[in-house]
Amino acid sequence: MTTAQDQVNRIIEAYKERTINRVFLVACGGSAALMYPSKYFIDRESTSITAEVYNSNEFIYRNPSTLGAESLVILCSHKGKTPETTNAAKFAKDKGALVVSLMYVPTAPLADESDFIVNYSWAPPGELDSHPEIANYAVLYRLTMGLLAVKEGNDKYEKLVRSLNSMTTVLQKAKAQALEGAKAYAKANKDESVIYTMASGVNYGIAYSFAICILMEMQWKHSHAIHAGEFFHGPFEILDKDVPFILLLGLDETRPMEERALKFLKEHGEKLLVLDAKQFDMSGIDEELKGYLAPLLLNFVLRVYAVELAAATGHPLETRRYMFKVPY
Amino acid sequence: MTTAQDQVNRIIEAYKERTINRVFLVACGGSAALMYPSKYFIDRESTSITAEVYNSNEFIYRNPSTLGAESLVILCSHKGKTPETTNAAKFAKDKGALVVSLMYVPTAPLADESDFIVNYSWAPPGELDSHPEIANYAVLYRLTMGLLAVKEGNDKYEKLVRSLNSMTTVLQKAKAQALEGAKAYAKANKDESVIYTMASGVNYGIAYSFAICILMEMQWKHSHAIHAGEFFHGPFEILDKDVPFILLLGLDETRPMEERALKFLKEHGEKLLVLDAKQFDMSGIDEELKGYLAPLLLNFVLRVYAVELAAATGHPLETRRYMFKVPY
Repeated sequence: MTTAQDQVNRIIEAYKERTINRVFLVACGGSAALMYPSKYFIDRESTSITAEVYNSNEFIYRNPSTLGAESLVILCSHKGKTPETTNAAKFAKDKGALVVSLMYVPTAPLADESDFIVNYSWAPPGELDSHPEIANYAVLYRLTMGLLAVKEGNDKYEKLVRSLNSMTTVLQKAKAQALEGAKAYAKANKDESVIYTMASGVNYGIAYSFAICILMEMQWKHSHAIHAGEFFHGPFEILDKDVPFILLLGLDETRPMEERALKFLKEHGEKLLVLDAKQFDMSGIDEELKGYLAPLLLNFVLRVYAVELAAATGHPLETRRYMFKVPY
Repeated sequence: MTTAQDQVNRIIEAYKERTINRVFLVACGGSAALMYPSKYFIDRESTSITAEVYNSNEFIYRNPSTLGAESLVILCSHKGKTPETTNAAKFAKDKGALVVSLMYVPTAPLADESDFIVNYSWAPPGELDSHPEIANYAVLYRLTMGLLAVKEGNDKYEKLVRSLNSMTTVLQKAKAQALEGAKAYAKANKDESVIYTMASGVNYGIAYSFAICILMEMQWKHSHAIHAGEFFHGPFEILDKDVPFILLLGLDETRPMEERALKFLKEHGEKLLVLDAKQFDMSGIDEELKGYLAPLLLNFVLRVYAVELAAATGHPLETRRYMFKVPY
């Protein structure tokens, strides 16, 4: 059986055969959210390659002029049948780009439009994945850190592969540590109609994911992922003692922005949940990778909270009123 | 007296003297929002130059590796004294980039850290600017379309300059046309606690601006600018008959996404405001520029709505509880 690591290895070999100067990270909703950390990595570390994150249809209609034979387009759709993403893969392939798609299922329409696929491992919210080292965020990093290893001699890829071997232990400990807090939070906040999330840098994408996928889609609560740097230039005026915020504190270089937001939220708000990556045990993760891998930890912890929130609200995470039920 | 157009002309001359392959558009809040249309333009039209929009502190902490002597960094701060933006200008200058800053005031700390400045024209929300051809969004386009004219022979710049001469008439007509609708909307929606905005492509930035600057900052209403393509991948589950949305319909290539959202909002929602650029008279604007210039029109119309909303809520647009009042 082909493992995800074998699939990644073959893609890394394919990188060697072409010039790549643009990476387009393309997907919808939660699958788009998982692209943000890899953009952060490429932005920080590549001197020759740019990275962009686009919603699948935005990518097609926007039709970036630099998309072409020297582009790598990485797409993701959990079940590989999001029509917009399949169309985006076809669009990219027609432009001559190298097209790599991630999906959980063995094959799907998206695979037919891609040069390569990777089948990632997955577990439902709050449950431990049997192979977190090849879960979606991890595979994305393998593909982007692998690219910079091949093209620029970047040394993070080897550190990543080693670090990911410790993810099972890291996540096990994190769940044990988070569970009681998650239950208490869910009980105290189950009736809130609005809950904002906030982060910056490498963690903005998971704040976005929790806002749009968990709170809006799965709990029908109003939400918005506020960028911690933008907070002070408008959004903070809606803060009041009764407005709930979930603030993520990461380990990346943008943490000072999140800490500034923390100080303000503590002074002027009362309904504050802070999830700080520093408070979790990341033993086994390479020191240089902790910033990049914090989103994998925080995203998992957020999903422990999601499960408890659904239990407290009595609104299962699977319940939808429109998605896959009405035409759209 | 130096006019903004003279200032722009000098910057365009400076472009000719250097290689430019990256544009970083850097600002905070409403000033960041005005960068999005220019990114859309560069994405669509440039084959050699990339564009990124970053919050000022995110830009500094993220520290993109491609930032350097071949970068153009364009910043904006209305009064030129947003500390994060001044720091970002200094940071970019230290990296060897060409640094251009926009501000309304003649000079300010931001100017001291910039190679060039442009003083744009400005009028309060809802009022007609005496020089809309050199207002902030227009100046941004002059700088980015001017760049592609010089570097790639792009022909939009000349069309832009001609088209902007008609903006006064276009906005006058738009205000006359929008006013009654704005009054009625404000009366009907003044007590709403949540109002979402939605758009895609070239207009996403102004949906973002209305959400964070007008609704959250100036009216203390919960809000969020939802991308029309992302809407169907999570956010649409919060739609109900009593959830208000403001949907923008632009004239750019992404309009089909906005139209798809319109159909759904009409089927499942009731509190819908649609501002469609097609319904306004854009005579005098070059046919090829209408898509790019629709945000200037829609942003102006949104501000007519903002003034009426403030009148109806009795909450002046100038009222703040934190901004410039408490430490942050």
